[in-house]
Amino acid sequence: LVRREVTRVITPGLILESQNLSAKKPNFLAAVSRSKRAMVFGLAYLDVSTAEFRVVEVDSEEALQEEILRVSPRELLIPDGEDPLWVHQLQRRMDFTLTSLDRIDFDRHRSEERLVEHFQVHSLEGFGIQNMEQGIEAAGAILAYMQANLLGKCDHIRKLLPYSRSDYMILDEATVRNLEVFQSSSFQGRQGSLLSVLDRTRTSMGGRKLQQWLRYPLLDLDRIKARQEAVAELVEHAELRTEILNCLEGMNDIERLNSRNCTGTSTPRDLVALKKSLQVLPALKKMLHSCRSPLLQELDQSWDELSDVAELLEATLTDPPPLTLAAGGVIRQGVHQELDHYVRLSRDAKSWMAEYEARERQETGISSLKVRFNKVFGYYIELSKSNLSAVPSHYFRKQTLVNAERFITEELKTFETQVLEADEKRQELEQQLFVELRQAIVQESERIQSMAGNVARLDSLASLAEAAAKNDYCRPVLDGGEVISIRDGRHPVIEQFLQEGSFVPNDIHLDQEKQQIIILTGPNMAGKSTILRQVALIVLMAQVGSFIPASAARIGLVDRIFTRVGASDDLARGRSTFMVEMQETANILHQASPRSLIILDEIGRGTSTFDGLSIAWAVAEHLHDFKDVGIKTLFATHYHELTAMSETRPRVKNFNVAIKDWQNEILFFHKLLPGGANRSYGIQVAQLAGMPQEVTQRAKEILAGLESGQTSLVPRPGPEQRRSRRFKEEDTAIQLSLFKPSLQWLRD
Amino acid sequence: LVRREVTRVITPGLILESQNLSAKKPNFLAAVSRSKRAMVFGLAYLDVSTAEFRVVEVDSEEALQEEILRVSPRELLIPDGEDPLWVHQLQRRMDFTLTSLDRIDFDRHRSEERLVEHFQVHSLEGFGIQNMEQGIEAAGAILAYMQANLLGKCDHIRKLLPYSRSDYMILDEATVRNLEVFQSSSFQGRQGSLLSVLDRTRTSMGGRKLQQWLRYPLLDLDRIKARQEAVAELVEHAELRTEILNCLEGMNDIERLNSRNCTGTSTPRDLVALKKSLQVLPALKKMLHSCRSPLLQELDQSWDELSDVAELLEATLTDPPPLTLAAGGVIRQGVHQELDHYVRLSRDAKSWMAEYEARERQETGISSLKVRFNKVFGYYIELSKSNLSAVPSHYFRKQTLVNAERFITEELKTFETQVLEADEKRQELEQQLFVELRQAIVQESERIQSMAGNVARLDSLASLAEAAAKNDYCRPVLDGGEVISIRDGRHPVIEQFLQEGSFVPNDIHLDQEKQQIIILTGPNMAGKSTILRQVALIVLMAQVGSFIPASAARIGLVDRIFTRVGASDDLARGRSTFMVEMQETANILHQASPRSLIILDEIGRGTSTFDGLSIAWAVAEHLHDFKDVGIKTLFATHYHELTAMSETRPRVKNFNVAIKDWQNEILFFHKLLPGGANRSYGIQVAQLAGMPQEVTQRAKEILAGLESGQTSLVPRPGPEQRRSRRFKEEDTAIQLSLFKPSLQWLRD
Repeated sequence: LVRREVTRVITPGLILESQNLSAKKPNFLAAVSRSKRAMVFGLAYLDVSTAEFRVVEVDSEEALQEEILRVSPRELLIPDGEDPLWVHQLQRRMDFTLTSLDRIDFDRHRSEERLVEHFQVHSLEGFGIQNMEQGIEAAGAILAYMQANLLGKCDHIRKLLPYSRSDYMILDEATVRNLEVFQSSSFQGRQGSLLSVLDRTRTSMGGRKLQQWLRYPLLDLDRIKARQEAVAELVEHAELRTEILNCLEGMNDIERLNSRNCTGTSTPRDLVALKKSLQVLPALKKMLHSCRSPLLQELDQSWDELSDVAELLEATLTDPPPLTLAAGGVIRQGVHQELDHYVRLSRDAKSWMAEYEARERQETGISSLKVRFNKVFGYYIELSKSNLSAVPSHYFRKQTLVNAERFITEELKTFETQVLEADEKRQELEQQLFVELRQAIVQESERIQSMAGNVARLDSLASLAEAAAKNDYCRPVLDGGEVISIRDGRHPVIEQFLQEGSFVPNDIHLDQEKQQIIILTGPNMAGKSTILRQVALIVLMAQVGSFIPASAARIGLVDRIFTRVGASDDLARGRSTFMVEMQETANILHQASPRSLIILDEIGRGTSTFDGLSIAWAVAEHLHDFKDVGIKTLFATHYHELTAMSETRPRVKNFNVAIKDWQNEILFFHKLLPGGANRSYGIQVAQLAGMPQEVTQRAKEILAGLESGQTSLVPRPGPEQRRSRRFKEEDTAIQLSLFKPSLQWLRD
Repeated sequence: LVRREVTRVITPGLILESQNLSAKKPNFLAAVSRSKRAMVFGLAYLDVSTAEFRVVEVDSEEALQEEILRVSPRELLIPDGEDPLWVHQLQRRMDFTLTSLDRIDFDRHRSEERLVEHFQVHSLEGFGIQNMEQGIEAAGAILAYMQANLLGKCDHIRKLLPYSRSDYMILDEATVRNLEVFQSSSFQGRQGSLLSVLDRTRTSMGGRKLQQWLRYPLLDLDRIKARQEAVAELVEHAELRTEILNCLEGMNDIERLNSRNCTGTSTPRDLVALKKSLQVLPALKKMLHSCRSPLLQELDQSWDELSDVAELLEATLTDPPPLTLAAGGVIRQGVHQELDHYVRLSRDAKSWMAEYEARERQETGISSLKVRFNKVFGYYIELSKSNLSAVPSHYFRKQTLVNAERFITEELKTFETQVLEADEKRQELEQQLFVELRQAIVQESERIQSMAGNVARLDSLASLAEAAAKNDYCRPVLDGGEVISIRDGRHPVIEQFLQEGSFVPNDIHLDQEKQQIIILTGPNMAGKSTILRQVALIVLMAQVGSFIPASAARIGLVDRIFTRVGASDDLARGRSTFMVEMQETANILHQASPRSLIILDEIGRGTSTFDGLSIAWAVAEHLHDFKDVGIKTLFATHYHELTAMSETRPRVKNFNVAIKDWQNEILFFHKLLPGGANRSYGIQVAQLAGMPQEVTQRAKEILAGLESGQTSLVPRPGPEQRRSRRFKEEDTAIQLSLFKPSLQWLRD
């Protein structure tokens, strides 16, 4: 009977085994603490498998939810007895385990003490979190939970990084989903996402880092430029880039290997994998040495080749090692004299058995005599029953089988004792030496962890450079200005699905002076949604430090991208399609700032025409008039009437997507042109979609009927209108231009 | 060294281990064969874990795709070298492994031979598949693949069930998704689905059966009525129902246990689980005996209590058995004399050791003397170094530790040999007896399998009855007529989310004479989508044989339910939202028959108002005029103009959902009323959604501006119109009623 102790408790947020983790995804355990007095939340989160430990404070439930959705933890800790609404709302939007922890674990002072003690620091000032009261509580709770469940094995957590939401572009979950940053809706997976285009990382660490970059685009020009320069250098030096990527190819997940080491769960194979990865470091160092961009130089300077660690591993462990420690043969010959001795004994046993067998055969004259070993009986001599008469007297009977007898001799017994003893000793010694080695490596875990970070950064930079080079991206100019100007922009994902060079690029210019709100009209299938999203994706990529699919661009930093796209209802929660649409729009109007970029792909479609048009109109006006400066907006719509707004609102400009109606077929040019469209060619698209001809024919007749009367939706001023105040000077303009019939154009 | 042989190859479609299977979901391996001459496809699919094996033939790629989506196999076999487009289309819509098989495995004659041989039948006529050429090919391929990979262990597959698509209501994947039959979009899982409301099954077999029923609603009145009557009986007899469900609670997945038996992978625990399940059968039989509905009587008559099997298991196996066979103690005492003997020896060892220890202590005078056993050295006597002087001469030194010495004696050695031998024998015998037992059970596998089916059916019927009783459902009258008439219908899922009794029921009547197409208008959030879907769900439930959430209903059989709901684009595949919408609509128009039921929740929204309206109008007309009989349709729309169609199309009727505009707030009554609506209250809903007040205020002004002019979209007849032929007698009607302004109502 083996006595078993609980050595650790595994919860969803505390998984270390690689088979239960997704290599390129972090596995976060998060905790939230709320201030009793003010609306301040502390959110801390930790990936035990990589030792990434971050903390942030936010000042509203909305921001808290957004941030948790961005982090998407596997497990969330809250104080016992709390059951806030936001948790329930979150649980409907993502899948995580909710764990209630004793309130005492969130206690400010205890948390601070716990953190100070764990990190062995004098105070938390070194981490710059001394004033984050809620943050400290949340981080302390995580530490308490981890210590209780991993039973202390968490020495590898050496850093706690605070950040502020204002350091990063805010990307809410809907926008991340709508822009298909990490997952595409078409494929329900990575394929078709922005990530799939940009991720050419060769290591799991790099993959996770790149995802983090995409999740947190920067707002700091210097940091963006530093990344850009590193990417630029690697784009230019194709050979260097390829060498770096090839080198990285051979590298394992040293971040997680290191964590397994520190928690004492690593196997011989883990340590050998670590060794092989470390052995790549010097070659990478050499490559970095020639680089001139500051970020790569910084990597070079802080590059620790860890040769001592690699050499220790190389000198101590066999390669390849056996699958488990128990199998024996993990430690190299020459490392430990006594061990070598026992190994030799063990190894010599076989030849001794053969010799002994030969000797006994000769002495007894029984040629079928066998010397064997099995686990239950140990060593024995086996003779068939027919030879029993020739058995010498010093043979002791040990076991009787149907056709054979098994014997033991004093000599064999002595030998057995020696061999078994040697084996046991060997096992013990190997175990001990292995644990010692592991401890020696744990001593260097901080260095290893820091190099894991360096490797991840290098991998991400090289990946962005590789994507830029392969896809013909350009380096955008970023500044603190208010202009977004993109020449020959493309959609990074969709162009991948088309033949090379066949994607039609478009220029887009937005500023705060003349062209702030673009009303984009044009037929179905012409590519309006694509253009809208490509602008948002390009801005996002630019602020990550990536190059972009365009020939040139100038981008003033954007604090947040908002999107309102698509529609689906949510009956179980009592929300109609239109309700969902309106809630999302309301959310944008409440949160956007003049530095935001807004993408609206149709709003007001889920209700009657007049209602929808009125709402769309009012929203567009609101965005234009916002705090007298307005917000940069791309607004695609089939309400052609909205194009009239450009006549009353100076910074509203109309564009449409070119098509040609040729011999009753539509040709799509996907080219953006100034001016509004006044036809949507819906029936032609229905025809393309395979609608029965008699239906489209009839629809055309009905349409002709509708159009052939004067298309006079123009409202005449009635008594109500005069009552309303704001309907004054614009009235005439609206009345003249709203739904201005362009029937002439239609008949051309 | 243990010699390892490949005993089976595991592919996604050939999983047997329960931990890799979802208990209530089937795990199908499918194969498709296509005729060289005509457009005929054979589709066969098998769940090895439950032995369900079905085959069907279809006559178009579309039908094939639909059927595969319905089956949703984990693995699909096609002939090597074929790479048809439909496979790629499928792979974008669901996740499965595609496996190419040698063409020879699909060969008609070989397949037939293989099937005949496997099932040990004279010909395939017994299965009624002799004329399904492609079906035979596909089924033969599955058999070939299974035999090759499971290495012959597939004797439990005893039946091949052919069916025809025309036996069942067709439910395409979009409809299943839109109606949230198995998964809700809100929760991305079972919660909020129709299944979650109806599934009160207590066994995995029942769960799978119920899902199959929901996936394949019936078209055969007799079969539906048979299920209804069984459900009715169980609804009435609440006590009986509860007893049955409680009984079933104790039952394991005998279908899969049986399969594991047949493939030789079952453990002692599996067999004990099987026993416990079989022991429930007599009690269930007793309950069934009192039933009078034909289906339950049929179950009673074919109910095999399998007492002989249960008794054999009970008599042979200990309960609870050890985790593995190797641990020993699987076979009961009394089953095998020799085994008992060895077990006794083994058991007596401990007391012998204690006795021996006491004796030796006394003889040597060393009170700290210990007799122990370990795996490496076997039995030994341990003495501390301080006692070495007192060691008797017949003690042989065996091992030296730091503070102790270990010894063996002749007596202990003899004892050891006996004990170890006994242990080995015991293991061998247990292994042998267990395998014999398993084989005996395999002999009865057909009976067990058939009872698994009976249990599944009983469980599903009881589940439907339980759901009916708990949710206050009624029994609908089904007939071959053309009327769908529902009194006080409710949405089965949404009512679960509301307080009991607070869901507002509605009557719906559809026929082919007077009220065939319902145009449903009304404000946003009033519940149009809910009403539409509840009608479809009620019809589906009725044809499954379930009771329905209504106070009464008469339902003429529907051959297919179509839905067009929601909207999302698919940019990566180059399909705009509107394109997706039009393709789905086109699909409906091509495939619907006069016996279908169509649900259209907004069409034509993704394009300009005139285009969309024209298309919606033409589609509605088409559905009305279809083959001069029309198709029953529920059409929700915000194009209030469509309500005018009732004046020119006799079987079109208008309904709206009641609300009251009271002191600038809207009250939702969720009640269906005859007549059209002419306002959508979009702005009020936007207000409810939290849109900033200045925006909704402005939207109201704009709306007032639009409305206060005469809302005269009425087309005047122009020169084009006279050219078109079909625009004749309807013209006047349309011109008069289209967009008829009801401003008076609005101002009330």
